[in-house]
Amino acid sequence: MIETIGFDADDTLWHNERIFLQAKEKYTRLLARYHEVDWIEERLDATEVRNIRQFGYGVKGFTLSMIETAVELTEGRVTGSEISDIIVYAKEMLAAPIEILPGVRETVEELASIHRLIVITKGDLFDQEAKVARSGLGGFFDEVEIVSNKKPEAYKRIAERHGIEFESFLMVGNSLRSDILPVLSLGGLAVHVPYETEWWHERATDGELEGIEITRIESMAELPELVRELS
Amino acid sequence: MIETIGFDADDTLWHNERIFLQAKEKYTRLLARYHEVDWIEERLDATEVRNIRQFGYGVKGFTLSMIETAVELTEGRVTGSEISDIIVYAKEMLAAPIEILPGVRETVEELASIHRLIVITKGDLFDQEAKVARSGLGGFFDEVEIVSNKKPEAYKRIAERHGIEFESFLMVGNSLRSDILPVLSLGGLAVHVPYETEWWHERATDGELEGIEITRIESMAELPELVRELS
Repeated sequence: MIETIGFDADDTLWHNERIFLQAKEKYTRLLARYHEVDWIEERLDATEVRNIRQFGYGVKGFTLSMIETAVELTEGRVTGSEISDIIVYAKEMLAAPIEILPGVRETVEELASIHRLIVITKGDLFDQEAKVARSGLGGFFDEVEIVSNKKPEAYKRIAERHGIEFESFLMVGNSLRSDILPVLSLGGLAVHVPYETEWWHERATDGELEGIEITRIESMAELPELVRELS
Repeated sequence: MIETIGFDADDTLWHNERIFLQAKEKYTRLLARYHEVDWIEERLDATEVRNIRQFGYGVKGFTLSMIETAVELTEGRVTGSEISDIIVYAKEMLAAPIEILPGVRETVEELASIHRLIVITKGDLFDQEAKVARSGLGGFFDEVEIVSNKKPEAYKRIAERHGIEFESFLMVGNSLRSDILPVLSLGGLAVHVPYETEWWHERATDGELEGIEITRIESMAELPELVRELS
């Protein structure tokens, strides 16, 4: 029997990566007079990797990495007005309308009448709370848990806090590494709903996936039926 | 009887405002060739106020506001190397050693053996978790709740989550507006421990304080005795 269903938020309930990709595109265009697009992207990725331990995930840390990279790439020649544009991108990202993924609203509404639903999402507390509020889906969820990482320990803490037994817990998300593998390792159930792109931070290695069977659906619209089958 | 004690973290358990003030000082020195210190500070405060709704609290949002202000104040003449310095200040702030306030360690250790202790702090999830971990005090607390604001609703949600009754709950903190008034309004107990400076965001107005009696101690060292008296 499935009692509680955990949902990842970004790229599971609504589009998110797309917003970062759009910002990245504007950013490479902004700096195109200094460097090739590929080189700009490569340097930005490297800065992000270097900074993630200090900045964590989210728009603000990403923006600081964009600014840091711009200074580096231009050997300090980046102009004030270019820096200002980058800050505008950050504000646009933070204000971007929430685009809910197909099938999500109906699925969440249906499942909420039978199960306890929890949003379990990684990232910046302030951004994520604002997104849940703006999504209009908040009312279907009993709890919203925003965590700084999705290692098994984080799931264990949430389970203790809400009296969840892993054998009756199902996690749904687009990231094998963050949503699926840790929950399976704790004896829970998990369903993978791939997103159109996979964030390079979230890619699982072949080693991590060896011998593990992944339940996968193509769209959130298929979830209620799968939940009935699993129950 | 007091069962659960909530502690604010920044400027209650450890120095925090000081780290922001030091960064601000470096920042005004950095831009001194463009403008007067007072004017720089005034403009930075104004940017922060304007941005707080989108950025929330914390080092990363503060840094983006410093950068935005630098571009504005210099009419775009700020150099790449100056921008780079501002990002260095952010990283220094995030890596700053945690300086625990006098009396805190002994007090927390003593109270942890009798009461359930919870950290209830506002701010950036990633920064705040890192600070709790680095403080070495994490082991004394049963829960760490990081919230995006400290309005009465936020305290209510925490109380529900942890089965807290307000009549047996005591909140300890340095901010009248965030730690004391909301808890008193819910029927809880609260103790004010003023910090050496008061952040302008946190200042309560005379109207908010009218007719309210505040219990106040000068140092966290006085807390265990006060808790015994209140129990």
